Amino acid sequence: MGGDSAPGVPVRATLELLRAEPALEAILVGLPDALEPLLEHRSESLRRRVTLQPATQVVAMDEPPADALRRKRDSSMRVAINLVHEGRAAACVSAGNTGALMATAKFVLKTLPGVDRPAIISAIPSLGGQTLMLDLGANAVCTARQLCEFAVMGDVVASDVLGLERPRIGLLNIGTEDIKGSGTLKLAHQWLRASPLNYVGFVEGTDIMSGRVDVVVTDGFTGNVSLKTMEGTARMLAQVTREEIRRSVFSRVMALGAAPLFRSLAARVDPRRYNGASFVGLQGIVIKSHGGADETAFATAISTAVLEAQQGVPTRIGRVMAEHSFPEHSE
Amino acid sequence: MGGDSAPGVPVRATLELLRAEPALEAILVGLPDALEPLLEHRSESLRRRVTLQPATQVVAMDEPPADALRRKRDSSMRVAINLVHEGRAAACVSAGNTGALMATAKFVLKTLPGVDRPAIISAIPSLGGQTLMLDLGANAVCTARQLCEFAVMGDVVASDVLGLERPRIGLLNIGTEDIKGSGTLKLAHQWLRASPLNYVGFVEGTDIMSGRVDVVVTDGFTGNVSLKTMEGTARMLAQVTREEIRRSVFSRVMALGAAPLFRSLAARVDPRRYNGASFVGLQGIVIKSHGGADETAFATAISTAVLEAQQGVPTRIGRVMAEHSFPEHSE
Repeated sequence: MGGDSAPGVPVRATLELLRAEPALEAILVGLPDALEPLLEHRSESLRRRVTLQPATQVVAMDEPPADALRRKRDSSMRVAINLVHEGRAAACVSAGNTGALMATAKFVLKTLPGVDRPAIISAIPSLGGQTLMLDLGANAVCTARQLCEFAVMGDVVASDVLGLERPRIGLLNIGTEDIKGSGTLKLAHQWLRASPLNYVGFVEGTDIMSGRVDVVVTDGFTGNVSLKTMEGTARMLAQVTREEIRRSVFSRVMALGAAPLFRSLAARVDPRRYNGASFVGLQGIVIKSHGGADETAFATAISTAVLEAQQGVPTRIGRVMAEHSFPEHSE
Repeated sequence: MGGDSAPGVPVRATLELLRAEPALEAILVGLPDALEPLLEHRSESLRRRVTLQPATQVVAMDEPPADALRRKRDSSMRVAINLVHEGRAAACVSAGNTGALMATAKFVLKTLPGVDRPAIISAIPSLGGQTLMLDLGANAVCTARQLCEFAVMGDVVASDVLGLERPRIGLLNIGTEDIKGSGTLKLAHQWLRASPLNYVGFVEGTDIMSGRVDVVVTDGFTGNVSLKTMEGTARMLAQVTREEIRRSVFSRVMALGAAPLFRSLAARVDPRRYNGASFVGLQGIVIKSHGGADETAFATAISTAVLEAQQGVPTRIGRVMAEHSFPEHSE
């Protein structure tokens, strides 16, 4: 198990969720010596629904993905993904090294037929409730066809996981006019327009949270920078608020009074409610939790995995992708 | 004059600034029938410092830049930039069509020797006070050498306009390790490291507001998306705050009490304090104000123009660029 507070956080989050959802079972993968103590003093009925799967190696958070793939064949990550591949687990949830997790998932599970590259998708808080965005970092550079495939995968996740009908899909650009952006973007724009998807056209950075669309499609470089810009902006505003509150006794008293307001405000955009990015386009479900996730956040990631498994998202993506016919790569 | 509330806002902002800064003079460029009424009832001493320069055409906000350049030779934008070119104005400030303004500025003023492409730079609020970021949209795709030139231009603006010594410069990427990002980014990373600039290396989206660096260098596509993501995030949080305040009488009362806190908070990150993006790399000073700027915001843009003129930023960029020797374009 990876992540900044493994295995405590993932195990406690799992056990909490098992308690709330009696139909679930869990396989905990990792160093037995680290996992076993966490199961002590738990009820027999709960323990019966938990299997320990030993793994002798750990992938470090900064380990190059290729090294992890080559040298860590008995890492918790690799063993967990093997379980998905063998059909013994419905999904793998990990807070470990993102690059290594993606490389291992691609290597073991393989991409779905018709999918050129898997992508990372996550929900983002928006004025419309939430917006899905992909790719968030798996593919720094993308072809027009890959962007179109991301649109199809985003459409399936928005339908199956968010329960939306005809999700509105936008392609991220630096303007909404047809003449804007690179040749790759213009080509994808043209192909998406001709597709049966509910494609609304180019959208801008402001539209990620405006609620104008349900799915924002972009390459992994732009998606990752944009996601981290959001994080940075929110963190700065929170820090500035704290500083202003500390500045005077009057502000401190007022902030005390306004505490319920701040609390409900924070709850609306709580990043823990959006934790768990799905790797889509693979023959299996893999969810990446934030490395610094707490139990609430990690439980959100597991719940997403459960929902995707119930809906059979990979199978659905494979089937829907086969219905689309985007032109072959020409770049 | 362009922008959403032209010519009222720009003219009033200019007159206010002239009143505050007795050494300044202004040339107002636009349709005389629209400008003259705005100068009525102003003191004779103020009017003596204002010149009206007629322009018979207006560039529409959605007009393609090439059309504006070809067909609008007597637009307020073109005439104002001509004044800079002829040395009759020290700088041009416009709230008009960004693309047309950049195309006209490039055509009339030309780029500085040693500069391949001009870029758009602006200050962004950060935990360190402010961070400069470029390019914000002039060049969707950039070569390694162009990114290096942006770093030099950012260094000069940070030194001359923000008054920083040895500004810390970062290159925006999706990770800080050397192996991250495209070949172009890796090449620029290597060249910047070998340069005399105070280059700190790759930075991530969160670092734009973290205060870790003074200048963030990126291509115009990423820069524009990132800037608009910030805008969207701030706008969403403000909207959610308003909704939460409206939700209950208790919250409304508390918000009333916390109003001074909200006010000082808003002042810290007020976008009007950061209005005015500079076009750098040209043989002259051109500042783009936000189209929706109010008088306070427009005045900030004019003040930036005044500061750049006092410091002679274009001359400084030309001189500093000549001291650097980045490898020739190889992409």
